Amino acid sequence: MTARGFAEAEYRARTARAQRAMAEAGIDALLLTTEADLRYFTGFLTRFWESPTRPWFLVVPVAGDPVAVIPAIGAALMRATWLRDIRSWRAPDYADDGVSLLAEALGELVPRGGAIGVPSGGETHLRMPLNDWRALRARTSARAFRDDGGVMRQLRMVKSEAEIAKIRASCAIAGRAFARVPQIARPGVPLAQVFRDFQRLCLEEGADWVPYLAGGAAPGGYPDVISPATERALAAGDVLMLDTGLVLDGYFCDFDRNFSVGPAAPELLRAHDRLIEATAAAFDLARPGTTAAELFAAMDRRLTGGAGGSDAGRLGHGLGMQLTEPPSLIAADQTVLAPGMVLTLEPGIECAPGRWLVHEEDIVICENGAEWLSDPARHLTELPL
Amino acid sequence: MTARGFAEAEYRARTARAQRAMAEAGIDALLLTTEADLRYFTGFLTRFWESPTRPWFLVVPVAGDPVAVIPAIGAALMRATWLRDIRSWRAPDYADDGVSLLAEALGELVPRGGAIGVPSGGETHLRMPLNDWRALRARTSARAFRDDGGVMRQLRMVKSEAEIAKIRASCAIAGRAFARVPQIARPGVPLAQVFRDFQRLCLEEGADWVPYLAGGAAPGGYPDVISPATERALAAGDVLMLDTGLVLDGYFCDFDRNFSVGPAAPELLRAHDRLIEATAAAFDLARPGTTAAELFAAMDRRLTGGAGGSDAGRLGHGLGMQLTEPPSLIAADQTVLAPGMVLTLEPGIECAPGRWLVHEEDIVICENGAEWLSDPARHLTELPL
Repeated sequence: MTARGFAEAEYRARTARAQRAMAEAGIDALLLTTEADLRYFTGFLTRFWESPTRPWFLVVPVAGDPVAVIPAIGAALMRATWLRDIRSWRAPDYADDGVSLLAEALGELVPRGGAIGVPSGGETHLRMPLNDWRALRARTSARAFRDDGGVMRQLRMVKSEAEIAKIRASCAIAGRAFARVPQIARPGVPLAQVFRDFQRLCLEEGADWVPYLAGGAAPGGYPDVISPATERALAAGDVLMLDTGLVLDGYFCDFDRNFSVGPAAPELLRAHDRLIEATAAAFDLARPGTTAAELFAAMDRRLTGGAGGSDAGRLGHGLGMQLTEPPSLIAADQTVLAPGMVLTLEPGIECAPGRWLVHEEDIVICENGAEWLSDPARHLTELPL
Repeated sequence: MTARGFAEAEYRARTARAQRAMAEAGIDALLLTTEADLRYFTGFLTRFWESPTRPWFLVVPVAGDPVAVIPAIGAALMRATWLRDIRSWRAPDYADDGVSLLAEALGELVPRGGAIGVPSGGETHLRMPLNDWRALRARTSARAFRDDGGVMRQLRMVKSEAEIAKIRASCAIAGRAFARVPQIARPGVPLAQVFRDFQRLCLEEGADWVPYLAGGAAPGGYPDVISPATERALAAGDVLMLDTGLVLDGYFCDFDRNFSVGPAAPELLRAHDRLIEATAAAFDLARPGTTAAELFAAMDRRLTGGAGGSDAGRLGHGLGMQLTEPPSLIAADQTVLAPGMVLTLEPGIECAPGRWLVHEEDIVICENGAEWLSDPARHLTELPL
């Protein structure tokens, strides 16, 4: 495995890129509240975000180093990062849960009349209570909070070589786990058991944790791709799909594999071939200058004859510190691909009413094309009866 | 295992309780956006929330059944719940990501001049983009959005018998996994390997997934309790702590166990004894009528001599559909305990500067006292060298 974390130079480079974009956008500081945004600039990696109790704040000024305003329980771990200005309070504090400390930091770092950018567009949310958000604005009234103008979106969409190496390693772990599925999936095994066992395989193959596993198993296609597993036993004729987002050192993979329990019906094999063809078509097109919409169109042509997609909503997406990130492979996404963008290609096909087959691979955009991060599947894998 | 999910009557009872509280608070509808709040009323259980891309909405009117306004990708799974009024759009939609559909639903369900309650206090957040929140308010200007007045907090703090049964089953799984720690933790094994193996044990013992594992290992106490595992190998004299929040059927446990690698130093044994005593003192006090603050005080007396806690910020918390829920065991929390509340008791002690020992158990408040949900530890477990 590559070394854990990143060199300080990586975080300084991210900060410098952010600051150039902020200067262009007329933003004096970014206010960040979510796990991925904080970790992006600091390397602060902990599963403690699973607890919704405490708010965490990072202020990235247009010049100078970021300032963390965080609960005291996280101060020791934050001190192990490259950050030097760490302000903490004993949380939860019902009278003032970091609001005055944050307002003070913003008062120091942002001039009166200045603009504070808060990620406000698609796929974002503000991870703090609305009441505290209201109180913060009242206490920071001489400064304007506004949309960050897509600064964080643009920044995080393009991954560094070091980030790509981590995603590649994460994909390799999932690939080894998928290769072992015949050890755990047989007729008679409940799907819930397959899900538990598959997560175990991911851990055995080196995953730090497994935040996401979805899938399904049913004859001729699954009814949806987001349901938890049931106790129904696998049966001959089922198609089994497992879609995992496991994490290594804070970076996800996100791809799936389909398996036929016993010999697959010819129409299932044909449907799977079309998914592989759609994936290949998008891969062949993927290079700097191509748009997300063009990748969508290339796949949609092979799936629906160009009808414009399905209720799944998209045919792939960005990937990195989160299971899904911008952009979306939809007709409306005009994001121009650039070297370092990591994407999933995720075509789906409705084999029969309410019976789906979905395939997914992970790729990275390079100077002259794309590279696979997942080892691409070519065939539907048959599990012995 | 108990059956998956809940009977429709459970969801109807939750809705009726919410509606009584809403009527008292003068709220015409609740607008909910987070995983736990949506699942509380619907039973909609999926790991798909790991993707931040799509917003999900539930409107609970003061009379009548809840209405789901959700991305089409989730409609099939939502149709499998008791809800009948499910409105969906193909997300992500950059032009209108459910905002007009939600505004329309609120327009139908809430009279002009009416109040829409949004959870806005501690431990909450609004899971939708700020830009869409602004657009929604503009389109719903004839109605007032306001704090839900703690309706959701009060409601979810008190668990039903069926919920408690699930948390109990989740605790039992973790208990079995903790009992097997001697199989995976020996001198020379890297802590990261112990973490991976412990999650594997949780899955083998029946967990659906393992969203949380924290801990540490160091001589004489660990520096903090939220760091991810390092590659440092366990060594004689270490104290190892594992703290897990695994999930069964959507319900968490949250407790830890401490282990001594080889014989423990006498001062470590004494420190652990004090943690057990603090836990027992809180347990003995825990009954309807006692406050969260009183549980805190009982433990703090034995830990700091009543100095008022530590930087960890609290000595326990609520537990259920989330790893941590209200209330907090802090001096300021005047929540009066009631039958059905599920709590963790989580005393910590600083054995030496920067060296912590933390213990945690799960309990439920009953009519005449409390019951353990975790099988309480009595001693520090010694791992053979």
